[in-house]
Parts: sequence; structure tokens; C-alpha cells
Amino acid sequence: MNYRAILHIQDSQYCYASDLKTIELMLRVSSEDEFDEISVIYGKKYDFYLVRRSTLMSKTYTDGVYDYYTVTIRPEDVRFVYVFRLIYKGEEYFFYEDGIAKSYDYSLAYYNCFQLPYVNKADVPAAVPWFKNAVFYQVFVDRFNRGNFAKDDSYINLKWGAVPSSKSFAGGDIDGITQKLDYLKGLGISALYLTPVFKSASNHKYDISDYYEIDPQFGDKASLKRLVTEAHCRGMKVVLDAVFNHCSEELEQFKDVKKRGKLSPYFDWFIIRGDRIEKGNYEYFGVCEYMPKLNTSNKQVRQFLIDIGLYWIKECDIDGWRLDVSDEVSHDFWRHFREAIKSYKPEAVIFGENWHDSYPFLRGDQFDGVMNYAVTKACTDYFLNGTLDSSGMAHRLTALYLRNTKQANAMMLNLVDNHDTHRFYTLASKDADKLICALALIFMHTGAPCVYYGTEVPMEGGYDPDCRRTMDWSVEQTPTYLSSVIRRLARIREQSPEIREGSIAFSSSDGMLVVERRGKNTLRLTINNSKEGKTPVRFGKEVLSHNFAGGKFDGMGFLIEIKEEN
Amino acid sequence: MNYRAILHIQDSQYCYASDLKTIELMLRVSSEDEFDEISVIYGKKYDFYLVRRSTLMSKTYTDGVYDYYTVTIRPEDVRFVYVFRLIYKGEEYFFYEDGIAKSYDYSLAYYNCFQLPYVNKADVPAAVPWFKNAVFYQVFVDRFNRGNFAKDDSYINLKWGAVPSSKSFAGGDIDGITQKLDYLKGLGISALYLTPVFKSASNHKYDISDYYEIDPQFGDKASLKRLVTEAHCRGMKVVLDAVFNHCSEELEQFKDVKKRGKLSPYFDWFIIRGDRIEKGNYEYFGVCEYMPKLNTSNKQVRQFLIDIGLYWIKECDIDGWRLDVSDEVSHDFWRHFREAIKSYKPEAVIFGENWHDSYPFLRGDQFDGVMNYAVTKACTDYFLNGTLDSSGMAHRLTALYLRNTKQANAMMLNLVDNHDTHRFYTLASKDADKLICALALIFMHTGAPCVYYGTEVPMEGGYDPDCRRTMDWSVEQTPTYLSSVIRRLARIREQSPEIREGSIAFSSSDGMLVVERRGKNTLRLTINNSKEGKTPVRFGKEVLSHNFAGGKFDGMGFLIEIKEEN
Repeated sequence: MNYRAILHIQDSQYCYASDLKTIELMLRVSSEDEFDEISVIYGKKYDFYLVRRSTLMSKTYTDGVYDYYTVTIRPEDVRFVYVFRLIYKGEEYFFYEDGIAKSYDYSLAYYNCFQLPYVNKADVPAAVPWFKNAVFYQVFVDRFNRGNFAKDDSYINLKWGAVPSSKSFAGGDIDGITQKLDYLKGLGISALYLTPVFKSASNHKYDISDYYEIDPQFGDKASLKRLVTEAHCRGMKVVLDAVFNHCSEELEQFKDVKKRGKLSPYFDWFIIRGDRIEKGNYEYFGVCEYMPKLNTSNKQVRQFLIDIGLYWIKECDIDGWRLDVSDEVSHDFWRHFREAIKSYKPEAVIFGENWHDSYPFLRGDQFDGVMNYAVTKACTDYFLNGTLDSSGMAHRLTALYLRNTKQANAMMLNLVDNHDTHRFYTLASKDADKLICALALIFMHTGAPCVYYGTEVPMEGGYDPDCRRTMDWSVEQTPTYLSSVIRRLARIREQSPEIREGSIAFSSSDGMLVVERRGKNTLRLTINNSKEGKTPVRFGKEVLSHNFAGGKFDGMGFLIEIKEEN
Repeated sequence: MNYRAILHIQDSQYCYASDLKTIELMLRVSSEDEFDEISVIYGKKYDFYLVRRSTLMSKTYTDGVYDYYTVTIRPEDVRFVYVFRLIYKGEEYFFYEDGIAKSYDYSLAYYNCFQLPYVNKADVPAAVPWFKNAVFYQVFVDRFNRGNFAKDDSYINLKWGAVPSSKSFAGGDIDGITQKLDYLKGLGISALYLTPVFKSASNHKYDISDYYEIDPQFGDKASLKRLVTEAHCRGMKVVLDAVFNHCSEELEQFKDVKKRGKLSPYFDWFIIRGDRIEKGNYEYFGVCEYMPKLNTSNKQVRQFLIDIGLYWIKECDIDGWRLDVSDEVSHDFWRHFREAIKSYKPEAVIFGENWHDSYPFLRGDQFDGVMNYAVTKACTDYFLNGTLDSSGMAHRLTALYLRNTKQANAMMLNLVDNHDTHRFYTLASKDADKLICALALIFMHTGAPCVYYGTEVPMEGGYDPDCRRTMDWSVEQTPTYLSSVIRRLARIREQSPEIREGSIAFSSSDGMLVVERRGKNTLRLTINNSKEGKTPVRFGKEVLSHNFAGGKFDGMGFLIEIKEEN
């Protein structure tokens, strides 16, 4: 037994409450070890030395390196204490806080058993119901659609359809989005995520100079209200982009500091080396001096930004915030932000732009979920770079899934590309089959899929600014195959409680990737990520497929089947 | 290489900022693997693909199962990203978010390198300076000393010196403590931690019926103010016990709910199954129905308790709170509590009564430290039960130390016993050598030692209520050997910056336990935990010892030496 591979972490994704009465337990062991059985011996904190229960755990997941045993328990008492009992080659072992031993002294358990000391309501996050049903569509506002032709358009310097530079302005605006709501609804979209819309000098508007005004290029408060109202009428949600890590050097408060140095009441709103602003002597985003970092450790800044977060919900009834560069902002800030937002509108969603393992933000006290870039990367490795085969992909997706709790996994925004990456279609050298299979995967994943505008064409685009081309509206007149795939995938999500609520399992079979969502029924997605024809063992009734006919794949494609249980 | 044993967790005790400019990194590997070298390759988030630095890590700790490589880095930029490079039998491996591989693609590092995305001030806790210097003394108020002979003492039913029952009242009070401050000062004590003093029907007062009044048995606000003032005059601190998990059934709010059920505005202050209080249909502490659990998830309750926490600091200038049953209270509550307390009095200390691995509370957002029961248990296993030998003890202490960050380790309250355990001296069958050696250990540990009243006698006592006997004041007239040991250990702490600020290392040598504290100088504690005479290899100048003469231990004893560096 490789006992050094065994891992359990209390009060973490390895042991947490999925609701006020339910505890999820996980134990990690080496994938090379065959255990006779693993069980958890548990009880109530105050009489564990007298009364104990035991439940077998199941080998639920493997990532090729570790196996993961899990069990869901609804204990009598939520002052939950436990030790693991492992049987390996007929020998009994106990695993508890101090490590692994051949015996365990329950009379001293109050010192060193594992525990989840109490399930307090304030510490148990719940997924936002509408998010689990959502199919998101990300709009880069300047490039999606122009709706207002009465506005001063002297700023527009890019002809619709021409290739953009980083300084291009194409004229897209909020009215333009509102006009396309029926189109988006028809595509199966139920939620929009817009890149920033507040006052800013750039086309992307990630450098905000006034958080209380809509940029006139994009419209005004009335336009945003109209968009949200019209979206809500259609059962659609609208999420805005919260750029709270940094602002524009044109923000009034920064200008005041520039002018008055330490005499400015806003001096501590930024992180400055020295007594006044000089070239680059302050913290800023990336390599962009024009985007000074906001000091969210300052309580005034914290309140300033929370007020903004609340204002747009109160004023325009938006449905949540995507948080820009969220991992560089203080945990402390996000905790206060979450509390304020959720107190006012519990069904508002909060998801961060975290590219890395985001568990430190997803313990329930900060974000609901994140943009699932880790899955984006896995799709890149699997579909494009060939650095993962189907088995490797199943393992990777499993490992990524197990980074987080069920609640957080239900609130992930899954994407194959966006305004900060190459378009997936371009990375795939315009192989639509790859894009289609990757979309099938993110539509079947836990959380909500997010389609970057124009994916339905599919549009091309390399790295920023090329991935921010103007929308190709020919798709509206001439629906594409991609549109129909997206529409159908969206419909399957809508009709399948298994995709919203079911468990998820990744595996491979005969070189194909298999994703199963189990609820009352079971949905299975099989992906053939090769040009070879392949014949999957049939599982159930076909729901949707691509490049699949006569029981086999004619090259790269996917198959979604359903097996109904009685 | 046992690659499954390798562990690193981002934004945790494995990677954290110890101050705004300093990052502490740790990598865990199997203790059976001999690495040629392990280094960390790090850089700035936004140009890591271009510019990287590399630093060797040192094998700093071992717990006999795992070795721990560490390094302290003061990076140019606190948007810190990194991967580990391991050389094993001449082969190179990289360890990053997705696991271990023989190569690493830095051009895609933004997806899967490790990171500490930004060091924000609000997320970096600092140890409270005075705590690192402190020697605590815990007073069980009813049993320590009676100072007020004018009070109504009809409640007293225990003659001083008689053996207490759970219903005994002996008459100890706050004035009694104040009168003994000079005695305590002489013993080397610099901080008091008092069991609860607020209005309550019991002798222990953990069932509080009025959080805004001192129990008349113990005195009044004036007595507490006098105690704190007199303590402060002597450079001593006073910490009170915050019982916020539960209250007394006599609390006004609970009585209102009892009377009015759901009509009471306080109904949600408690956790009740049903519409009104019936026998045992609500959450309470342990098996004690007379101690209803407070619902800290309710924001009114949260504010009620925070106001109490602030009130006694404002009113009587106390120096912090020990938190009763702290692990059963919501994380959310403690975050708000910490923020309120630290905003008002940053040097107030907050330490929890957590018996188990407490990392979830010690990330910097909740407590400063905890009562270090894990070390108490280790002392029990090593000195009393013989289930740990010196090597096992060194490994256990190492593993416990590595559960937490430097800041949290500096804020641990180390104890060998208290009002909730048997007295250590009694567990040791009155073998004073064992008690003395255990005290030497906790005085040399990171954090502050806490001496339970009467240890200096040493007093005897089994489990509650026997461990709560009345103080034996003969010690004041006739100082004991134990008093002098405590006084001398306290003086060494006071005079040794190494004990307050230095690193700590545990090892064993020739069957003896060795603890080293390294700063400018190095202090070494050697403990001979056996009746055998042993001869330690000398390290430096002797500072203090017990049962050590002529260069060897005459049975169980300890030796503290100092090696001065130039």
C-alpha cells in the first residue's frame, strides 16, 4: 500500500456540506493500490467513543494517478466526526488526523479523529438555480451589433467586417444587443455576459474612468435597462463585467492623487511606492500603466466598489457579475462583495476570471464559480495539440472536477474560447468537427456553457485583437450547421435534468471519450476525437450526434444517447 | 520516485505571504526518496514565459513519512507564479497544477503553473507582537482566590481546599485575581486568560445569561476594570473567554422564544425543529439542553455577539478573547468578529478552542491562533502513554507545526492541561519530572505557553470537576521547585528573541528529543524522557537544566543550551 499517496483534507472539497443535512466525503488513494474495502466510521462529536456507524465508500473517480473513494452521508447530528478504515490485503488500517496506523483509540478521538465540527448555514453555499439551466453567450460589445444610429459616431474607425487593431472602434452598442435578443433566443441562448460597458477610453472598456456611467459609445442607463427588461421578458439573464482589480488612470480618484500626492484623500486607494505618482511607481494591471490597481485592502475602496456592484443591480436589475482579474483582488474584498450582493439579490451570480486552480475562491465565501479555463486548456490539449489522448482527457477532466465542491462545479462557466484567447476554430485550423465536439463537451459538463459571439458562424480569429472581429451577421439570414448544433445542444440541456443536477463521470472506451451524466436517467456523450471511423458500443437511445450514422462514427464526431430508467 | 506522495497546495500553508513582500513555499515529498535537488522556478505572472528565476529549496523538515522542502522568496513582483523542478536519479521532472511531467511548456504557463496571484494586504495576517513575548496563566475564576469578603457569599458551598463537585462554588472572584498579580508577575507570568466572568448560574459560567454583566459572585465592571488596569500597570495582559457558540437557557432572548415561539423576534436566533421550544427540539452544546446553541448565521445574532466582543474591549480595555467551542461556530461569524475586533484594537488577540487540525480557521481571516491541543496530545503520547518515542515525537511535532503558517504558529497557545482535561501531573502519576520536561517543551515552542493555575504547586486533579480544585496558596509562602522552573523558563523566553522569532526544528538524538530555535543565536532544548542516565553531545553554554549535572542526565530531565553566533 502506498500510504503516502493517501490524502484527506478536513473542511475542504474532501469533506464539506452540500446542504444543511448532507456531508460529502472523499478519500484519495494511489490508483495502483487495490483495496479490499474502504469505509468511513463516523458518529456524533460528543459520543463517538460510545456510538459509531460505518459506511462503505465507493471508488467513484480515478484520474490515472489516484483513485477517489466517496460517500454521501446524511448524519443524525451535524457535529460530524470520523475516521477512515481501509482493508488492504486483508490487513486493517485506520486513517485519522495524525496519519495511518493499525489501530485506533476511540477513547481519545476528541483529540485526533477527523471532523466537520458543525454545519452552519452561513458557511454552506447553494448553487443559483437559474445558472444550472443557463446557456451563456459572451458579447464583446463594440463588435457585436450597432443598434443606435442616432449617436455621435465620429469615434468609429473600423468598417464592419474589416480586421480590427487594438485601437479599433466598430460601433457596437447595447441597443444592438437588445435588437438581437430574439436571434439569440432562437440560438438557444438564455444568458448574456457582456464585456464592460462603463465609461472608458478603450474599445474593450477594461480601463474604467466612471463606474456609474454607461459609455456613450454603448448607450446610457436607459439602454441597459431596456436590454435587461427585454431579456427578462424572454426569460434571459444579463451578467456584466466587474473590473475591480484596476481602473483607468482617468478615474477621478486617481487623477486627484496624481495632482495632490499624499494630500489627496485617495492616496491609499492605490498602491504607490513613494509620496506621489511618478512614472510606473504604482501597482497596475499587467504591463499597463494606464490601468492603476485599486487597493481593495482599503475599506473605502472596498465600499466604493461594493456600492457599484449593488448600484447596477438596483438600477438596472442585472443578474450578476463576472469578475475581471479576480484572482489578484483580495479574498477579503470578495467576501464582503459576495455578502452585499447576495444579501440584496440572492439569485445574482458571481463568477471570477480565474485561470488557475480556483479552490481558494470557491469555498463558498467568495465566488459561485469561475470561468473554467482549466477545461478550456484540457480541450486545447485534447482536441488541438494532441497532448492528451481520450484516456488522458478523461483523467484530466476528472482531476479538474475534483478540485471543487459540487456547489462550485454546478456554477462553473465552461468555455472553449473568448476575447482573451485565440478562437478555438482558428486554433483548430478551421476544422469545424473539432469545434463541434468541444462544444458538445462543454454543453454536457457541470455548470453552464458559454458561447463566444460568432462561434455559431463559425468566425475566425487569432489572439487579441483578432479574436474580437465584428460579428458576421450573415448567420442570421443563413443559419449554419454550427447554429443548429448549438441550438440542439441547448435544447438537450433544457430538457435534461441529468445535465443540470446529475452526477458526472469521465472515462474512455476504445479510444473514445465518454462523459456520463446520471440522474433519474443517464445521458452519455461519446466523442470520437480522431479521423478514424469508430463503432461505439451502444448505450441507449440516440439524442443528437455529429458524423455518426449507421451505428458508427464517420470520422471525428460525437454521439449523445439517453438510457431511461424505470 | 514516489510521485504520488508529492504535494503542494496553492494559497495555503504550502504557499503564502508571511509579510507583504515575502513568500513562503513548501513542497512535500516522500521521506524515502533521495532527490539530487529540488528547486522552484518562478517569475512575474505577465512575463514568466520570457523571464524566469530559479532557487534551490532546502530539505527543512521531515516527519518520518514525508520530507518538506522549503524556501523563502522576496520576489520583485508579488504576482508570483512558479513551477517546481525536481532532479531524481539524474532525471528532470516538473511539478505544476496538472501534475508531474518530464517537460514543461512555459508558453502555456498562464494556464497551469502554480501561482500566488497577488499579495493583498487585507489577506496577510500579522502576529500580535505582545503575544510572542507572553507567558499565559489560566485562571478558573471560582477556584483561584477570593478577594471580596463584602459580597453576599451565601452561594459558596465549598470550603477552600475541599474536593469540588460539579455544583461547587468556592468563592473565587476577580478581586482575588487582582490581589495576586504581584505573585503572578513574580512567577514570570505576563498574561492572564480567565474562564468566563459574565452572569451565569454555574460555577464555570460557560452558560451565560447576560453577556453585559459580570457575575456578582465574581464582582462587577469596576472589579474587571481594576484587574485590567492593575495588570497593565505591571505590563501584563488580560484575555477573557468568549462563549459565543451557545448561551444559557436563561438568556432573555431564549426565554422570549420559549414563551412566544415563532412570534418571538428571536426565534431565528436559535436552531429549532418545529414552531416552539419543546424538550430538546433545538440545537444545544454537547449534551447540555440548558446551553442552547446561538444561530450565528443570523445577522442579528452576529451583530449581537460582535457588539459584546467590542463592548468589553471598549469598556474595560481587555487584550483579547479566547473563543469557546470555536470550531462549531460559523467561519462567516468569525470573519466578521475578527474584522470588528482588529479594526478597533489591532493588538487584541483572538484564539480559538479548537482541538483538531485548525487550519480552516487559521488562514488569517478568522483566528490568530488556537489552543494547541494537538501538542497537548503529543505530550500525552510522549511523556505519559509511551506511544511515541523521541524520534516519533520529533516527527509528530514537525507534522503539527507544518499544519499552519508561520504567523499562526507564532500565535498558538501551548498547554499541557487545563480545566477540560486531567491535570498533567495527575496523569503522570505525580512524576514531577515529566511535568517539568513537558513545561520546558511548551515554553520553547512557537507561540505562547499557558500555565494552568496551580501547576506551580503542582496541584493534582483528575477530569472535570477534579481538575478545578481550589488553588493551594501555600505556594506563595513556600515557593516550590516548580515555581522556580516556571520563573526561569519565563525569563529565558523573555531574554531570547530566538524563542519569539526564530525558526523551530525538532529532532532526536540518542533517544533524546531535541528542539532548536534559531535566530541570531541558537537555543537548544534536549529532553531525556527516560529514567536512564544519558549523556547528550554538548551544543553550547548551559542556560537551564533539570536533573542534569556533570555533563549528563541523572534520569528524566531537560537541558537548555545557547550557542552564540558572531
